[in-house]
Amino acid sequence: MTKVAVILSGCGVYDGAEIYESVLTLLALEQEGCEYQAFAPDIPQAHVINHLTGEVMDESRQVLVEAARIVRGNIQDLATANPDDFDALILPGGYGAAKNLCDFAFKGADCTIQPEVLRFCKAMAAQGKPLGFICIAPAMIPQIFGEGTKATIGTDAETAALIEQMGGTHVSCPVDEFVIDEERKVVSTPAYMLAGKISEAATGINKLVKTVVRLSK
Amino acid sequence: MTKVAVILSGCGVYDGAEIYESVLTLLALEQEGCEYQAFAPDIPQAHVINHLTGEVMDESRQVLVEAARIVRGNIQDLATANPDDFDALILPGGYGAAKNLCDFAFKGADCTIQPEVLRFCKAMAAQGKPLGFICIAPAMIPQIFGEGTKATIGTDAETAALIEQMGGTHVSCPVDEFVIDEERKVVSTPAYMLAGKISEAATGINKLVKTVVRLSK
Repeated sequence: MTKVAVILSGCGVYDGAEIYESVLTLLALEQEGCEYQAFAPDIPQAHVINHLTGEVMDESRQVLVEAARIVRGNIQDLATANPDDFDALILPGGYGAAKNLCDFAFKGADCTIQPEVLRFCKAMAAQGKPLGFICIAPAMIPQIFGEGTKATIGTDAETAALIEQMGGTHVSCPVDEFVIDEERKVVSTPAYMLAGKISEAATGINKLVKTVVRLSK
Repeated sequence: MTKVAVILSGCGVYDGAEIYESVLTLLALEQEGCEYQAFAPDIPQAHVINHLTGEVMDESRQVLVEAARIVRGNIQDLATANPDDFDALILPGGYGAAKNLCDFAFKGADCTIQPEVLRFCKAMAAQGKPLGFICIAPAMIPQIFGEGTKATIGTDAETAALIEQMGGTHVSCPVDEFVIDEERKVVSTPAYMLAGKISEAATGINKLVKTVVRLSK
């Protein structure tokens, strides 16, 4: 049975993992007959956003503790993740991917990737295993895979330009499709970079998951 | 187009809305061609649970603000909900339904339902509109609909006995099915009272949503 690791970045689109994308990813993995294990880095969130008002709250929350909400507590510290245990890795989006897993939301092309995230992604890639990136998570692709790696964040010109600036090859993509770098086994889909409805995001995410599972065989 | 109100109870199974059930409900509503609007009462959570450890945290969070995480901020205060605007109502589960929407988790058969929740549910029922209850949310059915109303929370004998004690008629039900009280247009499904996997909960929730939509015509 294919075993897939999923890295979550908190719980809620504006400061953590996008919840629809995270759940759709896990559901698609089940439907493909995969086992999965969720991970998150045990670090403080960059900040806490009130999702009703959009304002920053005077609070501190941990990425791992909040991400645990999505998966009913079934999550592990990313520092303990062993690449030998998994056939593939998927990173859903949400601002958490660009604020907690890396700091792309704050520093753009000068961003750095959180050390445990970088370690695990690079280790999986080094073993020739496929990685899937959803929504804004593909902003990490150039630094993980190097120059010329194909990636999509949809059609946003400004974000695409930043990916190109980091050495990535951005490919425009509609919400119901995905982009694949066959050589490096990297798959990406825009999801809520473009989606207006859950079912739109689901179409692209289902295709991404199918492709990642196929590449893992 | 059928318009469905959905009442969320926070964000996370142990102190709020069960996230898988909430997302599956919204996705099923989209797939049935419905419009939906999420609501939550603007009240403090009963408590905040660390979903990694299960322990109570020394924090205070608002049900409406946290529920906003699930729906990307697209949520309204339940106090503003007008039953004339909707054809049906669905309440996903999670402990939030039994801790924030009512206090069944703390008081069992002596529980009371949060006033805005009770008002809106009763108003929808009075207009002959169907209501769907998922997971532990059916614990509210006897007090809303009165004696003899059919409801299921799955197969847990202790919880079922409490529902009977409140005057409900509990019907045992597997995770992939639902129970319907045709006369009162009340539908319930066990979801994560029994589910081991997201796709199991999805089967029952999809059937519940289809049935609620059918009854709303």
